[in-house]
Amino acid sequence: MLLYDSPLAPNPRRVRIFLAEKGVCVPTRPVDLMTLEHKRSDFEGVNPLRAVPALVLDDGAVLTESVAICRYFEWLHPEPNLFGRDGRDQAFVEMWQRRMEFALFMPVAFAFRHSHPRLAALEQPQMPEFAAAQRPRAIDAMRFLDRELAGRPFVAGETFSIADITAFVALELTKLARIDIPAELANLARWRAETGARPSAAA
Amino acid sequence: MLLYDSPLAPNPRRVRIFLAEKGVCVPTRPVDLMTLEHKRSDFEGVNPLRAVPALVLDDGAVLTESVAICRYFEWLHPEPNLFGRDGRDQAFVEMWQRRMEFALFMPVAFAFRHSHPRLAALEQPQMPEFAAAQRPRAIDAMRFLDRELAGRPFVAGETFSIADITAFVALELTKLARIDIPAELANLARWRAETGARPSAAA
Repeated sequence: MLLYDSPLAPNPRRVRIFLAEKGVCVPTRPVDLMTLEHKRSDFEGVNPLRAVPALVLDDGAVLTESVAICRYFEWLHPEPNLFGRDGRDQAFVEMWQRRMEFALFMPVAFAFRHSHPRLAALEQPQMPEFAAAQRPRAIDAMRFLDRELAGRPFVAGETFSIADITAFVALELTKLARIDIPAELANLARWRAETGARPSAAA
Repeated sequence: MLLYDSPLAPNPRRVRIFLAEKGVCVPTRPVDLMTLEHKRSDFEGVNPLRAVPALVLDDGAVLTESVAICRYFEWLHPEPNLFGRDGRDQAFVEMWQRRMEFALFMPVAFAFRHSHPRLAALEQPQMPEFAAAQRPRAIDAMRFLDRELAGRPFVAGETFSIADITAFVALELTKLARIDIPAELANLARWRAETGARPSAAA
């Protein structure tokens, strides 16, 4: 296996944290997003949608999309469980993973992509007013998550899951997106400090 | 069980098509998006993120997010299989589901939400220039899918899956999004005609 990775981008980081939680080590090859290496035609042979991460399997098949790659590793290495155990549990983990992705991760990522000067070549046309409209949505999602975390330790329930990874990586991107996490969100701060203290957070 | 549904919106339709493929009938309650019924405080008790679909389980728990709801029904009614069989297969179905969602469904949905006059109250602020930037992305995704469909009958491989549902519903929204599907994409046209001829397409 070979994982096309990028140290700076949030999506590959989701996969790295997931692998660290599993204790799994995979050979990686870095892709330089700043020089648009992933947009070059030779990378199109790896992923025609020209995005990282991408996982080349031993038979040459290429699996892309962070969550799909994580699900593949969940199958290969079921413990610790990060996608839920029975079907009902898995559905609720998926709900929280997607809520974090669509309500939190995407507004933060859009705010970043549409406002940061270093992403002007990547995101064309960059629309600062679109970025501005995303910031209050991200804050709303943080308030929602803060209320939810009043009653349980992790995003999807009693155990750490892929939903925590998506939410954590989204919050890590807030600085670059110029979004201030409201200081009064104590449950969110507690959860973020705990998640950041896990060894996987360094991945 | 009770499914909060909306006849006009694309995400509830994904769930309805999925249920029709499974041959499963679930009691539904319509939510009127045009009068912003889903944004009212009483609906917040069902889904704090104020979106449809939402599935109320018999024990009162509420499952939201179309794909999470579909995954729950896959667990309850495994046949016909729509999420893949073994772990590897499931990862590739997830990859295609997500590629269709992020590369095709989202640009089409954004073009619709940011340009259609009837959505001006729902999508604030509506940004027609953002809609305009999404249309060529949706066309790129159609060209990509057309090339892929040259070699296989369905989006994710040899069998119909949730990835077909996401892609089909996205194409159904192109008219409202004012996106013309390029007429020369013969594989896409073949696949769309076949998918549209399935009984589930009427759901």
